[in-house]
Amino acid sequence: MTLRLSTQDASFAEAFTALVNARREADEDVSRDVSAILRRVRDEGDAAVADYTHRFDHHDLNVSGWTVTAAERKAALDGLSKELRGALELAAERIAAYHEKQRPQDSDSTDAAGVRLGARWRAVDAAGLYVPGGRAAYPSSLLMNAIPAKVAGVERIAMVTPTPKGEINPLVLAAAEIAGIEEIWRVGGAQAVAALAYGTGRISPVDVITGPGNAWVAEAKRQLYGVVGIDMVAGPSEIVVVADSKNDPEWLAADLLSQSEHDPTSQSILFTDDAAFADAVAAAVDRQILELSTSAVARTSWDANGAIVVVTDLAEALPLVDRLAPEHLELAVDDPQAFFDQVRHAGSVFMGRMTPEAVGDYVAGPNHVLPTGRRARFSSGLSVLDFMKRTSFLELDDRAIKAIGPAAVALATAEGLPAHASSVARRLK
Amino acid sequence: MTLRLSTQDASFAEAFTALVNARREADEDVSRDVSAILRRVRDEGDAAVADYTHRFDHHDLNVSGWTVTAAERKAALDGLSKELRGALELAAERIAAYHEKQRPQDSDSTDAAGVRLGARWRAVDAAGLYVPGGRAAYPSSLLMNAIPAKVAGVERIAMVTPTPKGEINPLVLAAAEIAGIEEIWRVGGAQAVAALAYGTGRISPVDVITGPGNAWVAEAKRQLYGVVGIDMVAGPSEIVVVADSKNDPEWLAADLLSQSEHDPTSQSILFTDDAAFADAVAAAVDRQILELSTSAVARTSWDANGAIVVVTDLAEALPLVDRLAPEHLELAVDDPQAFFDQVRHAGSVFMGRMTPEAVGDYVAGPNHVLPTGRRARFSSGLSVLDFMKRTSFLELDDRAIKAIGPAAVALATAEGLPAHASSVARRLK
Repeated sequence: MTLRLSTQDASFAEAFTALVNARREADEDVSRDVSAILRRVRDEGDAAVADYTHRFDHHDLNVSGWTVTAAERKAALDGLSKELRGALELAAERIAAYHEKQRPQDSDSTDAAGVRLGARWRAVDAAGLYVPGGRAAYPSSLLMNAIPAKVAGVERIAMVTPTPKGEINPLVLAAAEIAGIEEIWRVGGAQAVAALAYGTGRISPVDVITGPGNAWVAEAKRQLYGVVGIDMVAGPSEIVVVADSKNDPEWLAADLLSQSEHDPTSQSILFTDDAAFADAVAAAVDRQILELSTSAVARTSWDANGAIVVVTDLAEALPLVDRLAPEHLELAVDDPQAFFDQVRHAGSVFMGRMTPEAVGDYVAGPNHVLPTGRRARFSSGLSVLDFMKRTSFLELDDRAIKAIGPAAVALATAEGLPAHASSVARRLK
Repeated sequence: MTLRLSTQDASFAEAFTALVNARREADEDVSRDVSAILRRVRDEGDAAVADYTHRFDHHDLNVSGWTVTAAERKAALDGLSKELRGALELAAERIAAYHEKQRPQDSDSTDAAGVRLGARWRAVDAAGLYVPGGRAAYPSSLLMNAIPAKVAGVERIAMVTPTPKGEINPLVLAAAEIAGIEEIWRVGGAQAVAALAYGTGRISPVDVITGPGNAWVAEAKRQLYGVVGIDMVAGPSEIVVVADSKNDPEWLAADLLSQSEHDPTSQSILFTDDAAFADAVAAAVDRQILELSTSAVARTSWDANGAIVVVTDLAEALPLVDRLAPEHLELAVDDPQAFFDQVRHAGSVFMGRMTPEAVGDYVAGPNHVLPTGRRARFSSGLSVLDFMKRTSFLELDDRAIKAIGPAAVALATAEGLPAHASSVARRLK
């Protein structure tokens, strides 16, 4: 039974706080297993990777081959229906266009004291892209991870993906071909993340690793943060919908279910100012679930994590939404901009009645890799910046060091660092 | 004895690889201790913080007071010499001016398909700033962490700093007053980081935690990454100096020592194309060390981690520098720009003979919190962006969803996500 709250309830504050604080992450204790895998791949390289692949994915890399060939990629693309190929190409184009605007500007200027200062952005040399196998093998995720790296100018993108029993999703291969990925390793799990981070005999190390994965993959990335850059700690997906009663309840029910069907741990929450409309949406959810091939997952998720919150006024929803800091926020109201202006925390916002979140998952352009679990309070969706780094620079001449050097000498001396002071003072003589 | 290499040595490749791969991080196994501290502060709040402070910092918060008062901050500032106050104020002004340019631009546009898309940046609500006590209590670090948060527009900055036996560095307090920090807690260590991340009865939680600390503080931040944002995993400081023989060896010796004096694990490396000049710098280092109040640390660091590499041509140094991806890179050559144009990986670059790295530590403007341990391959110095997050947004109308909706339906269907497809398809009818 889905949670139903009203801000008029005496227990509302307590119940809503429980909703905000609920941890949906599966509490699998994988950290020790992952540590052991990382250590072995670091020490034993390819042999460890092949052994883990045999054990977990049930195929022999030395028989099935370590990589996906160009011919396999091309065959996968050629095998697509015209409609699907067009859809992937439209998605790739629009994602590229949106991310092009994220390319940062360098700066280089000389100030009044004569100090030249600036910052220069460069792409990382190599990015590793994790693509899950099995149920969650999404070509859309591949595009969302690979295209920002391409736009950043990353020269080498190394993709890893598990191929259980040697099988690989052709839709994923086709998307890789569209994204221009030429290096694909048939390995997955924590062992693939370790191989990318440390390098092995066959697989050269990368600088940044992104892409979704199961608990083992997420824990491997978390443990390797600092050895390489990573995108973020990802949790279950979530949506908050803020809607008045002028919406079609069927549309909003479908929007809520589009998160619920992802995973049993996903979360969908509706805020509305009309109890009768809330009933209509709840009824539509129950009806639509029956028609879904994903009904078992959607039912579990909606019952366990879904919620409908009735507020007296939509403005009352605003601070509640901020406390949730949702990954996705739909504003199905007359003036979504006015509401958005006041929202502090959300990963991505979908404004108006004709902007279902799913359009953003695929073709709109902004990235669908977004902060979950209240992390929109401090983090952002995946972007071109995740594949770049900034080098600051300085250049002083005689005049400039005379202008600002004495202050550096004073501070270094006060901090008890005489060589710092001396390195400046010698140039002031 | 400091390492001396020449690219002409038969064993050069091997020796240089060992230098690149050397881990200088102290191998303290603090992870279990830190986990326990974090758990206890999360569960017991202020009582745990007070207990750890009593145990580690030897004072009773309920007697000495939990916070630093406005009067104490003001007294510290009033107690500064005019010269030192002027130096701190100049540093603060210049750091603010440099970081102002990092403020990101929002975007908002409508494309040919009628899709409105954009991105909006906002500051996080609250930032926590760790300031070490004891030897490494640097007012410059306080400014380098606090000012980007202020420029980002962060409304609340909560500073934590250990006050062993209740004592606090007045220079740090004065810097806090200059930076406009009004919330200062007399707590340090992993327990302070935990209090900032989880919140306690007295200390409200923050969204991002930055600032340097010892191994316990660094491990606490690492473990809490994801609960809050953090600046980065920081390791020992390092400098690479590339110099021709036209430099004053005394100047460069001082520059090398300005890193060596930080910590026994710091690293200073000189690349030069002139063996006699290398000898002169080495001799100057040995001479200058004797004059330093920090000589013991500098000697240990220079002998254990320092290196002089003689190359046949300075261009030969370029790929070697990139492999080191140093935190600081000085280019003491005639045409530093030409060299810089080809450098791929460095945290911050100091160009020309009149730009000692120490000027960047204090007053030049760019941030001195920089990636160490080869992390300049993928990460950047602290910036305004570390205190902000981006929300993407979308708005479609009837025409726009007709233009791009069908592709989303096709992809959702192919991925086996029928509620995704349905949420778009219902709006296409």
